[in-house]
Amino acid sequence: MSATAFSIPLWADLLAVAIGSLQGALFASQFRERRVDLLGVAIIGTATGLGGGILRDVLIGEVPRAMQSNWYLTTAVLAALLGMLLQRLFNRLAGFITILDALTIGLFGAIGATKALALGLPEIPAVFVGVVSAVGGSVVRDLLMNLTIAMMHVGSLYAVAAGAGAALLVALVVFGVPTPLAGLIGTATTFSIRLLAVRFGWSLPEQRALSRLPRWRRPR
Amino acid sequence: MSATAFSIPLWADLLAVAIGSLQGALFASQFRERRVDLLGVAIIGTATGLGGGILRDVLIGEVPRAMQSNWYLTTAVLAALLGMLLQRLFNRLAGFITILDALTIGLFGAIGATKALALGLPEIPAVFVGVVSAVGGSVVRDLLMNLTIAMMHVGSLYAVAAGAGAALLVALVVFGVPTPLAGLIGTATTFSIRLLAVRFGWSLPEQRALSRLPRWRRPR
Amino acid sequence: MSATAFSIPLWADLLAVAIGSLQGALFASQFRERRVDLLGVAIIGTATGLGGGILRDVLIGEVPRAMQSNWYLTTAVLAALLGMLLQRLFNRLAGFITILDALTIGLFGAIGATKALALGLPEIPAVFVGVVSAVGGSVVRDLLMNLTIAMMHVGSLYAVAAGAGAALLVALVVFGVPTPLAGLIGTATTFSIRLLAVRFGWSLPEQRALSRLPRWRRPR
Repeated sequence: MSATAFSIPLWADLLAVAIGSLQGALFASQFRERRVDLLGVAIIGTATGLGGGILRDVLIGEVPRAMQSNWYLTTAVLAALLGMLLQRLFNRLAGFITILDALTIGLFGAIGATKALALGLPEIPAVFVGVVSAVGGSVVRDLLMNLTIAMMHVGSLYAVAAGAGAALLVALVVFGVPTPLAGLIGTATTFSIRLLAVRFGWSLPEQRALSRLPRWRRPR
Repeated sequence: MSATAFSIPLWADLLAVAIGSLQGALFASQFRERRVDLLGVAIIGTATGLGGGILRDVLIGEVPRAMQSNWYLTTAVLAALLGMLLQRLFNRLAGFITILDALTIGLFGAIGATKALALGLPEIPAVFVGVVSAVGGSVVRDLLMNLTIAMMHVGSLYAVAAGAGAALLVALVVFGVPTPLAGLIGTATTFSIRLLAVRFGWSLPEQRALSRLPRWRRPR
Repeated sequence: MSATAFSIPLWADLLAVAIGSLQGALFASQFRERRVDLLGVAIIGTATGLGGGILRDVLIGEVPRAMQSNWYLTTAVLAALLGMLLQRLFNRLAGFITILDALTIGLFGAIGATKALALGLPEIPAVFVGVVSAVGGSVVRDLLMNLTIAMMHVGSLYAVAAGAGAALLVALVVFGVPTPLAGLIGTATTFSIRLLAVRFGWSLPEQRALSRLPRWRRPR
């Protein structure tokens, strides 16, 4: 397969990083009782914006993209500070940010999956790399805040949306669809599933549902 | 040192991944009160099965093996789903799975240590890489579930078993024993220590024991 | 930019690792109620000493330095065991260890930032790598102990001290100051800020201060 990475303009990549950072900082700002200080909020925001891309590049054996240019860290830090200072404003824009975020996980997933294919990784790892790119930032955020990883909870199909988009993208590339078109379709798929999940409150069944009769009362 | 990696057949490597994933999923399934959903259980299982190998390859500067073939992720995900669906069955087989798991940490440790030696790493880092390969999956599992890392608790000498096997393996290779034989002996050592520890309830003393008179009432 | 890494003698690098490990072990020893066993204390100490350097090398795409020599792991493990066994003694030396630790984060930051510059990374990533080198060990420690990351709390400007030193160092190198001199100045800056922060109890304002009227009662 001679896929090339689904390259998007630098400004779009940076916009995705900025939205991630902004959201990370807004998220961290809510936890007053954890006594996260200003620096902590900035660090968590930055880590949320950059985490997915750094994990992606570590998985595929590349020097992280965010380490190869001054723009990524600058953007991430400024967006985190902005989110921290303008909490109220951004909170009123919550709907708009949810839309941007859905676009962001779509873009990150598409960039990650095509980058993996371009480096010669097989199809299933490419899908995995796409998912990690999309959700990695929020996992890093939750690890740093010592919270249960949001993705593991009954939620809004965050990872499923990323996985479906990345899988469709990879399948299209395998069947000869040009990478830019496949990237667009993958991004749109993730974006749509994510927004529909938010809109209609979709969630996966809890694992409780599978085994109705309680067997273990206590975890080991 | 011209050690070659202790190569085991692909099916054995995948079996080890499968057992790790299965156990990870069974473990995660128990925590009802954490509201881990079906996807969460699958993710935790997969991460448990693949975590050790991915950490190993990141430490030695290689592209993770699980990213270079479709088999690893497929196996890990299917084993996690199987573990989730057949909780009851596998719980009845707990003894059998403990045996398979002891074999798995032995194999992972031997693969990790010999892979490190084959890349020219010195002896002590090679032992370290072996231990990380063996226990990394369970560390990743506990991080994702926001639990105290099981390995840190008073436990069943999980890491010690892995360390002893890897150290013996590396010592044998240094003294000229062929890698396959050293790998077998290392695996058998880890396997035996782990099973004996489970059988006889061995554990390390808590650090409490070392300093009987309490000095700090409060952690800093 | 043709910066060379700010190379310090191996013994100084190992001393920094040893101080990190010692502190990590002393820190872990305090948490009796978490039932961390002897092995757990040794693991946490070792991870604290080596974590910053390993994260640094993963970020810049190098095989971790600690994997390329027998000295790093040996030093880290011995220092952790020493810290565990001689808790009382070292606790009486707390002031001295704080000074050594301030020197350690200064050195780690300078080594990390100059190593990044020497590999051709741009300025801002180089500062970031310096900060991660300096504070990474304590982040890994807190992750393994399932504690809120100390750096995120209202604290003593730990990360700020590292960031200021690394930023000054990189700025000096950009303006043509020879790397060894820039490294010394950066180390001294971090060292001084850190010690002054401890001495005068400086801390950053909590994010609470920024938005006095509570808006969210509950985190999402």
